[in-house]
Amino acid sequence: MDIMQSSLEKHYEWKGKIEVVSRCEVSNREQLSNAYTPGVAQPCLEIEKNPDLSYDLTRRANLVAVITDGTAVLGLGDIGPRASMPVMEGKCALFKEFAGVDAFPICVNSKDVDEIVRTIELISYSFGGINLEDISAPRCFEIERRLKEKLDIPVFHDDQHGTAIVASAAMLNAAKVSGKKLEDMTLVINGAGAAGCAIAKQFISLGIGDIIMVDIKGIICDGDEFENPSHYEIAKITNKNHRKGGLADALKGSDAFIGVSKPNLVSQDMVRSMADKPIIFAMANPTPEIMPDLAKEAGAFVVGTGRSDFPNQINNVIAFPGVFKGALAVRASDINEDMKRAAAYAIAGAVGDKLCAEYILPDAFDKSLADVIAKAVADAAVKSGVARITK
Amino acid sequence: MDIMQSSLEKHYEWKGKIEVVSRCEVSNREQLSNAYTPGVAQPCLEIEKNPDLSYDLTRRANLVAVITDGTAVLGLGDIGPRASMPVMEGKCALFKEFAGVDAFPICVNSKDVDEIVRTIELISYSFGGINLEDISAPRCFEIERRLKEKLDIPVFHDDQHGTAIVASAAMLNAAKVSGKKLEDMTLVINGAGAAGCAIAKQFISLGIGDIIMVDIKGIICDGDEFENPSHYEIAKITNKNHRKGGLADALKGSDAFIGVSKPNLVSQDMVRSMADKPIIFAMANPTPEIMPDLAKEAGAFVVGTGRSDFPNQINNVIAFPGVFKGALAVRASDINEDMKRAAAYAIAGAVGDKLCAEYILPDAFDKSLADVIAKAVADAAVKSGVARITK
Repeated sequence: MDIMQSSLEKHYEWKGKIEVVSRCEVSNREQLSNAYTPGVAQPCLEIEKNPDLSYDLTRRANLVAVITDGTAVLGLGDIGPRASMPVMEGKCALFKEFAGVDAFPICVNSKDVDEIVRTIELISYSFGGINLEDISAPRCFEIERRLKEKLDIPVFHDDQHGTAIVASAAMLNAAKVSGKKLEDMTLVINGAGAAGCAIAKQFISLGIGDIIMVDIKGIICDGDEFENPSHYEIAKITNKNHRKGGLADALKGSDAFIGVSKPNLVSQDMVRSMADKPIIFAMANPTPEIMPDLAKEAGAFVVGTGRSDFPNQINNVIAFPGVFKGALAVRASDINEDMKRAAAYAIAGAVGDKLCAEYILPDAFDKSLADVIAKAVADAAVKSGVARITK
Repeated sequence: MDIMQSSLEKHYEWKGKIEVVSRCEVSNREQLSNAYTPGVAQPCLEIEKNPDLSYDLTRRANLVAVITDGTAVLGLGDIGPRASMPVMEGKCALFKEFAGVDAFPICVNSKDVDEIVRTIELISYSFGGINLEDISAPRCFEIERRLKEKLDIPVFHDDQHGTAIVASAAMLNAAKVSGKKLEDMTLVINGAGAAGCAIAKQFISLGIGDIIMVDIKGIICDGDEFENPSHYEIAKITNKNHRKGGLADALKGSDAFIGVSKPNLVSQDMVRSMADKPIIFAMANPTPEIMPDLAKEAGAFVVGTGRSDFPNQINNVIAFPGVFKGALAVRASDINEDMKRAAAYAIAGAVGDKLCAEYILPDAFDKSLADVIAKAVADAAVKSGVARITK
């Protein structure tokens, strides 16, 4: 059966992919008096005296809100808050299944940045972290930026940073197997939306040689005019040699390509024009920028896609459960660059001896992976001064 | 050990009284493709076409938000959103344990009515119902009224309506055992806050003879001036004979007393001044308006309190799980007067043959009770035209 049809049938069976359960038994008066009135007054009073105890006496320490406005859901676009809920519930199920993190989905029925920010701010005391999801660019940048300023809990737009972490982990290993050094590499990123921009920043943070960003109008170059305000910042930190032109021009002589754009934009000739042992991550879903067999035939040394039916699936589920688990473990106030870099190195390192051109990322279903990432992220949080506890 | 201390210790053990779990296994690629990308696109598209399918394809059909601003928590007052969370989590645990209803706690960090209403409105598509909790009067009235107008899901302020349902169920049975007819009875309600006003309206809906509301300034009488705007409405529907004076005056010759006020306000002489076989529900917590032994000694025929260590505990947990279960079962757009009245009769009827002056309410720990209430509430929703399905 077609995966779309089978998923729909499963959703009718599941009647929701998550569920809220009680952690305390309430079968007699004594239990009721402990869990509820009158006993519950005591933990309330303790938190009133010391608000940090909300992490010890409620679920907050292990709880993430997965929040969307439903404007950029999968490849479906602006389908609205109700229709986006199956994705948000799925994400919450993955948080629990892969990292034991409780996550609860909230779909906000507004497209107004001020309203979305204020709504999330007002409910933020109920959570230990905020995972923003499937919010369209450029609104997602401003929403995340303002929430990071206002809140003292981690705010993480997974479409940006989760994607960037996994893509950079994959690139660290792809560079290793192809004998390239990151600091000497030129990376072409096609698609300068939320994910593309976050990937660029993550690679700069990792010390890449140069990045050439390409969007629908061509190579982004400092001095040009842009509609998207975030492209001015991108133009300043990429394209050191002020290259001009389109995707084909960008790829000439470059070492690696990351596509977060549209199907079939990369030709075999473009791959042939790249430097020796080119690395191709064609992440457009469901049809990549170039199919892996065509890329290989044209000389690509390592190929990754977003798909599960090819080797090297570059999939966010590898990163976000462990990243939040680590941030929550030390009650981090932020998920900063150091923590994201630590996550990328932890993921790359987890591949171990199996590393080869066909295996640059760890098995997404290895449920010990989240703990490895969490430890690295928690350590980085402590070192960078955003952890509130050190355990 | 003291219940306060034992509850605190339990809270440190529990680390949260609720937990979000996955209802779908995600241990291999096929499961991941069904629960998440790419398959999840299909239920999203179905809901986009028909938003009502959010009840079939997500958890919404069984999910209630328990929302507070932390301004009127237990007897503790305005302790803020973080400190109120143990109560909200407790309520959510009770929803699940007593009725199998999923409930998720949200504490809103604002005391502004407009902001609270807007925040709840914006997240309401994520839920099948809203249980407002521990919001101070008179703000709670306006918040509930405006949300009921705006939302097409049930909005229910439990401190008002849950209390009213259980108190009226208890009174139906107390009247029965004392040989009184509701339509001939005069009921004195002491305390004209959220609970007192809701109790008055519920009894009027049940056809009580007359109600005399008393607050800190004395008997509420039509024509007087009031600080609380809702008292003008109360004055119009109560106190048919325009009685004046204080609590002692109100109780003279009256049949029943319900206290939602302060400890020890009712004397034995006041009880002696009441009509034959007086009914006393002294619900102030933790110390009642009059202790049961004193009330009995002064001639009270039936005595109830809010406490678990005396007979006839008038406890919200008897009502709210079943009320929401019934409303959710038929996807009701509201919890209206008919449904609340049906809940009261269902609770009163559930006592069955055990009915006597010392046993006017069913056992709160009888976990079949929620289904009995749910059926009555669902039937009333269908009959009153607020049900969207009839199963």
